Amino acid sequence: MMFWLLGPKLVLILEQFLFSFDAAEELKEAIAKKNHKLVYLYNPNLVDEIWKGSRPMPPNKPIRIHELKYAGVDVASKLSFLRSELIDTCSSAIIVSMLDEIAWLLNLRGGDVPHSPVMYAYLIVEVDGAKLFVDNSKVTPEVLNHLKNAGVELKPYDTILSEIESLAAKGAELWFDTSSVNAAIVNTYKSACDRHFEIHASDRKGNLHNGSNNQSWGPSGVYRASPISLAKAVKNPAELEGMHNSHLRDAAALAEFWVWLEGEIDKDVKLTEVDVADKLLEFRSKQAGFIDTSFDTISGSGANGAIIHYKPEPESCSVVDPKKLFLLDSGAQYVDGTTDITRTVHFGEPTAREKECFTRVLQGHIALDQAVFPENTPGFVLDAFARSSLWKIGLDYRHGTGHGVGAALNVHEGPQSISFRFGNMTPLQKGMIVSNEPGYYEDHAFGIRIENLLCVKQVDTPNRYGGIEYLGFEKLTYVPIQNKLVDLSLLSVAEVDWLNNYHAQVWEKVSPLLDGSAREWLWNNTRPLVKQ
Amino acid sequence: MMFWLLGPKLVLILEQFLFSFDAAEELKEAIAKKNHKLVYLYNPNLVDEIWKGSRPMPPNKPIRIHELKYAGVDVASKLSFLRSELIDTCSSAIIVSMLDEIAWLLNLRGGDVPHSPVMYAYLIVEVDGAKLFVDNSKVTPEVLNHLKNAGVELKPYDTILSEIESLAAKGAELWFDTSSVNAAIVNTYKSACDRHFEIHASDRKGNLHNGSNNQSWGPSGVYRASPISLAKAVKNPAELEGMHNSHLRDAAALAEFWVWLEGEIDKDVKLTEVDVADKLLEFRSKQAGFIDTSFDTISGSGANGAIIHYKPEPESCSVVDPKKLFLLDSGAQYVDGTTDITRTVHFGEPTAREKECFTRVLQGHIALDQAVFPENTPGFVLDAFARSSLWKIGLDYRHGTGHGVGAALNVHEGPQSISFRFGNMTPLQKGMIVSNEPGYYEDHAFGIRIENLLCVKQVDTPNRYGGIEYLGFEKLTYVPIQNKLVDLSLLSVAEVDWLNNYHAQVWEKVSPLLDGSAREWLWNNTRPLVKQ
Repeated sequence: MMFWLLGPKLVLILEQFLFSFDAAEELKEAIAKKNHKLVYLYNPNLVDEIWKGSRPMPPNKPIRIHELKYAGVDVASKLSFLRSELIDTCSSAIIVSMLDEIAWLLNLRGGDVPHSPVMYAYLIVEVDGAKLFVDNSKVTPEVLNHLKNAGVELKPYDTILSEIESLAAKGAELWFDTSSVNAAIVNTYKSACDRHFEIHASDRKGNLHNGSNNQSWGPSGVYRASPISLAKAVKNPAELEGMHNSHLRDAAALAEFWVWLEGEIDKDVKLTEVDVADKLLEFRSKQAGFIDTSFDTISGSGANGAIIHYKPEPESCSVVDPKKLFLLDSGAQYVDGTTDITRTVHFGEPTAREKECFTRVLQGHIALDQAVFPENTPGFVLDAFARSSLWKIGLDYRHGTGHGVGAALNVHEGPQSISFRFGNMTPLQKGMIVSNEPGYYEDHAFGIRIENLLCVKQVDTPNRYGGIEYLGFEKLTYVPIQNKLVDLSLLSVAEVDWLNNYHAQVWEKVSPLLDGSAREWLWNNTRPLVKQ
Repeated sequence: MMFWLLGPKLVLILEQFLFSFDAAEELKEAIAKKNHKLVYLYNPNLVDEIWKGSRPMPPNKPIRIHELKYAGVDVASKLSFLRSELIDTCSSAIIVSMLDEIAWLLNLRGGDVPHSPVMYAYLIVEVDGAKLFVDNSKVTPEVLNHLKNAGVELKPYDTILSEIESLAAKGAELWFDTSSVNAAIVNTYKSACDRHFEIHASDRKGNLHNGSNNQSWGPSGVYRASPISLAKAVKNPAELEGMHNSHLRDAAALAEFWVWLEGEIDKDVKLTEVDVADKLLEFRSKQAGFIDTSFDTISGSGANGAIIHYKPEPESCSVVDPKKLFLLDSGAQYVDGTTDITRTVHFGEPTAREKECFTRVLQGHIALDQAVFPENTPGFVLDAFARSSLWKIGLDYRHGTGHGVGAALNVHEGPQSISFRFGNMTPLQKGMIVSNEPGYYEDHAFGIRIENLLCVKQVDTPNRYGGIEYLGFEKLTYVPIQNKLVDLSLLSVAEVDWLNNYHAQVWEKVSPLLDGSAREWLWNNTRPLVKQ
C-alpha cells in the first residue's frame, strides 16, 4: 500500500492483489470515515515501476503429485463434491485462491512458500471443467498428465483477470469467498458484470414486449464461505494414517535430537538457540519423506521462551542456559504428513515455581486431551478446560489453545480452532486435527508450553444421550513430557495415570524406530511416575 | 392476540400492552412475510368488549417498603446513578416497565404477581423528577411518604400513555429498552413524535431564513438496554447479607422438612407430591420474614422427576415412591432474600445406575462451584465444567446450568447466565448471584438435579496474571447433599474433600438454628465420607 498526501487528505493506493476483498472493503470504509480516500491500483502497475528491474523473480519450484495413498481421495471425487456445491448454490463456477485449498483439491504440492507445500496458482472450477492458472515452468510432464486426467486445463498465471472478465461476459455466476479471494479478482468481476448488465439492459429495452422481461438481469456473484476449507479440515483415513506415520518418524528424530542435546549440555558445550534448531533440522532431515520444517523453529532459552512467537537469529540469539527452562516449538513437513510439537525441558534442577507452572500447564493439556463432548460443539467450549488449572492460581496465557493442522499441508489451517475468542462457531468434527497447546509465560523469566496434535474421533460412550455422537481426541504426537518438571503433589491420580499411560504408548510406538542411546533415552524418559 | 380470516389472508390483532416492542416487531415481520397482516389494538379495546363485566379485577395488594437495611442503597442514590446514565446517553427520561427494576429502584415490594414481590406499575425517571404510575389504592401513607422523600410523584396507572404523549410533545428524548417496554408505549411515543415533528416542520418552514434550520427536528427516542438490569444484578453487601441470612433460615426449614418426610416414609404414610410440597411450605412459613414461595414447587417422584418443569397437581400427581429417586426444586421469598434449591434423594436403596448418574451430576456441580476465572468471563465459558463429567459417559442435560437470582426479588433475573447458549456475553461480576444446577433426566425413569445458589466473589489468587481480578464463587445454600447417592469410586480425593467440607459448613452454619430431631438429622446427614 502506498499513500500520497494531497492537501489535508490522504490518498491511499492499494495493490488489489495483496488484500482480500473483505479486508480491502473494511479498509476503504475506515478510510472514508476519516475523509481520506482509497484508490485501487490498476495497470500500469505503480509498484512494479518502483521495483523496476530489481524485483526478485517469483518462486518457481516444481510442482509434485501428492500421491493417492497419502491423499486418500482422488481429484475427480473432490471436484465432483465441489460441483455438487456449485449446483446447490446456483453458481456457474467457484474461484479458488487459497493456495492450500488448490493443493488439496488437485492432490498437488508445491514449494513456493517456505514451510507450506503449496504453489502460487488460481483455480476456477466450473460445472463442466476446471482451469488451473499457474506458471507453466513449474509443471512437469507427470503433473500435466495428472491434471489432464482430472479434466483440469492449464492457463498462464497472469491470465486470471481476463478469464474472470470473459466468464462475466458469458453471464457466469461466480462464487467467491471474499474473506480470501483478493480484491482485484472480485472487483474485476463486479465491473465486468456492470458492463455486461448495461449492454443487456439496453438489449432488453427493445425486447420488453417480447415477454422477456422476466429474464435475469445478468450475474451478480455468489458471496459465501468456501466449502473446501471444511472438506479439507475433515481428514480421511489415508490422510490420518499419513499423519500418524509421519508423527512417529518425527518422534524418532526428536528422541535422537534430545539425547544429543542433553549430551552436549552435559559436556558443557555452548550451543546457541539457532545451533540447536539447526541440529534438530539435521535429525529430522534424515527421516524418510522429510521435506521442510513446517514453520520457523521457536527455540527459546529462559526469558526468550516467554516471547510467544520468538524466532532466534544467529547474530543475536542466546546460548541455551542449562540452568533455565528451554522451550522448543517445531514441526516438519513430510511427504505424508505435517507435525507441530512443543516441549519444555530443564537440563538441571527446576525451581518449585517452574514445576508448579509446568504442572498446571500439563493439567490443562490433560484436561483438553481427555475431554469428551457432544457433536456440534464449537472448539471454544473446550478452551476453558485447558486454562482452568492455571486460573485457580491467577495465571493464564494470551494465545489460543488449539489450531487446525493440514495433512501434509499448512501447519495452520481453519476453519476450526480452540480459543477463548468466541466468534468461531465451527463445530469440531470427527477427523479434524487440532493442536493442544496450553502454556504459561513469565515475562523476563521463562516460557512453558506443552503441545501435542490431536485428531477428533468418536468416543464409544456407554450412553448416547440425545441420540447423537460424543466426540473426543486421539493423540498424534508421541514424545516424552519431562517428568522432572512435574510437581506430583498437584496431580490427581487420574492425571498421573494419564502421564504414565502416555509414556507407555510413546515407548511402545517409538522405540521400534530407535536404537542405541536414543532408545535408552526414550526408556529413561518414559518411566512411570508413582504418586505416594 | 386475536385473528380474523379475511379471504385468504389472516388479520392478526395484537393487544399492544401484552407484547414487548421487539416481540411485536418480530411478529409483524414474520406475518408480513406470509402476506398476512398485523394490526395493533387501539381503543375501544376489543378484548375488554369480550370480557365485558366478567374480567377479574387486577391484583391490588398493598405495596411495602423494602427496608434500607436489606436494600443497602437508598432510592436517592439509585435515582442519581440512573440520572447520570440519562445524561451520558443524552436522554431526557427513561421509561421503566420491568416490574423488578421498578421495585429495586424504589426500594419497594408488592404482591401483585405470584412468587415475585413486585407491583404492577410504570416508572418514568427524568433528569429532574420521577413519576410512578400505580393504582393509588395500593399505596399506604408510609409508602407515599417514602416516595415523596425520594422526589417520586404518584400518577394513576392508566395515565402512562397520556404522559408519554405529553413528554413527546415537549420534545423529550425518551430512553426505551425495547426488549422489555411494551409496544403500546413505544408506538404511542413514536406517533406522538411524528405529529410533533410535522407541526414543528411546518413551523420551521417559515423560519428557514431566520438561520434556525440547524435546530433538531424533534425527538426520536433512545433505544438501548436498560442500565438498571446490570446494576440490580450486582448485589451490595446488605443485599448479600440478607441473601445469606435468609438462606440459613431456609436451610433450617428444609432440615425440619426432610426429617419429617423421612419419618413419614418410614411409617409407610402415603404422601402425594403435592402433600409434600404443601408441608414444605408449612415449614418455611414458620421462618421469620417468610413471604411466599419463589416459584411453584417442583416435587417429582420417579419418572416425574425427569419432567424438567413438572408441576404436580392435586388431582393427578403421584404418591412419593420410597423406592425411587425424589427430586425437589423449591424456593422462598423472605423479607431479606430469595432462595432456590434443588435436592434429589432416595428413601431406600438407589441402584448403581442412579448412583453413577447422581455422582456425575455432583461432579459437575463441584466443578462449577470450584471454578476460578478471570474477570470479564461470560457465564457460558463455565457451562462445560458442569457437563464434562456427564459427557464422559455420553450423558447431558437440556437446560442451562445457572440463572441470575434477585435479592428479595424475582427468582429468575438477568442479565447474566451460565448456559450452553453462547449468545449471552454478559461477564460474571463480583456480587452477582447465579444458580449452580446441573442435572440428568432419564425419560420414564428418574430425574436428578443438585442446585445451590452461588455469589460471585473475588478470589485471592497467589498471582494476578494480566493485572486483573480472578473470580470464583461463594455458596449461599447450606443443605446436605445425600451421601447415600454418591458413588465414591468415581470421585477424586479433591471432590470427596469438597463434599465433606461443604457438609462441615452446613453443620456449622445451620445446626445453631435447629434442635431435636432436625438437629439430629442434620448431624447424620453431614457426616464425612471416607474414600478408601
